[in-house]
Amino acid sequence: MPRTRLRRLPERQVDDRLALDSLLDEALVAHVGVVVEGQPVVLPTAFARDGDRLLLHGSTGSGWMRSAAAGAPACVTVTLLDGLVVARSAFESSMRYRSAVIFGVLDRLPSEERDRALELLTDKLLPGRRGELRASTRSEQRRTMVLSMPLACWSLKVSDGWPEDSEEDRAGPAWAGLVPLRLAADPPVAAPDLEAEVPLPASVEAFVAGRNLPGPHPDPGS
Amino acid sequence: MPRTRLRRLPERQVDDRLALDSLLDEALVAHVGVVVEGQPVVLPTAFARDGDRLLLHGSTGSGWMRSAAAGAPACVTVTLLDGLVVARSAFESSMRYRSAVIFGVLDRLPSEERDRALELLTDKLLPGRRGELRASTRSEQRRTMVLSMPLACWSLKVSDGWPEDSEEDRAGPAWAGLVPLRLAADPPVAAPDLEAEVPLPASVEAFVAGRNLPGPHPDPGS
Repeated sequence: MPRTRLRRLPERQVDDRLALDSLLDEALVAHVGVVVEGQPVVLPTAFARDGDRLLLHGSTGSGWMRSAAAGAPACVTVTLLDGLVVARSAFESSMRYRSAVIFGVLDRLPSEERDRALELLTDKLLPGRRGELRASTRSEQRRTMVLSMPLACWSLKVSDGWPEDSEEDRAGPAWAGLVPLRLAADPPVAAPDLEAEVPLPASVEAFVAGRNLPGPHPDPGS
Repeated sequence: MPRTRLRRLPERQVDDRLALDSLLDEALVAHVGVVVEGQPVVLPTAFARDGDRLLLHGSTGSGWMRSAAAGAPACVTVTLLDGLVVARSAFESSMRYRSAVIFGVLDRLPSEERDRALELLTDKLLPGRRGELRASTRSEQRRTMVLSMPLACWSLKVSDGWPEDSEEDRAGPAWAGLVPLRLAADPPVAAPDLEAEVPLPASVEAFVAGRNLPGPHPDPGS
């Protein structure tokens, strides 16, 4: 988030490919920006990282995807909100976050690469689920469009600091600290049309357990 | 999220201003798209709704904000991920989400409206916090830029359905259902420079309690 100050920012530009990969592998949603007749359009989409490229998928009937696949410049932004930074003044209050901005051109994946890409996208959404399901049919594969963008031109910002209050505010009565935030999973709910005897699959159990681990405790010495 | 199918989509276009307001009031982060020299640029930002307009804020030193404030067309997109829709095939698996796309021109707020806008933005981040803090100084207010965009041209999509598996898949052995997702708060952590006797403020206690209520139980009859 742009912060409301001019001095040294606790957010920092990070030139670390491992940190980029970790953010891209953890986040479930990206925001894709394209320009349509001079107007910026920003849409959310599922995505996955495949080595040195991003994969996005959508319906072959999606207008923005068809337009993006025509080689227009695009921007894919992935943000995770990690916490509220609660300072001793409104001015110093902010958020902990990680945000990657990736520029490039989206290309439609050739069909011979599409099936593996769809497997990666399925694994990203719910790891292990693919092995619990029947294989996709040719018809299903044909109805899906996959776009790719190289991870070549990117920028990563990480805000992971503590409140930086003035000496005067630190001497005052207000609390300061951090409220860690994370995307948590509530207990799974069976579909209305599910037969009662079908057990919860291992993929869903693992996903819910993983989402409900407390995050790494923020290091007060960092 | 664009879904990987051509038939009837469980995501639907919603023409309901109350549903829009509810999404905008709940979400903490927006993604703003502007066009810079033909290139779309998408950045995350804190925001708040002020009646029939959006407020965004950032530093007066922020390049994209200065460029956006010059009256360029912009797109503000706000997305909340509400769950994984776990179907009996990869093709039918998807997400529950709500996403608002708002088009318009960003205008820099005149200074006489800025102070109230900053109060709204502070209240949005952490309701009740403003009353626990000293007033902002003139210098702090001057160093903050607030942009506004009218809530006039918007589109809201809501995906809140269940898996829509084929009869053949429904007769198969795979589980189907929903994994509800929400942004949860972990226990607050005091800043390293906080005096031990300063108690946790009511605003933080209420925020953490509110974030950790289980979400509304998804209605299997919906």
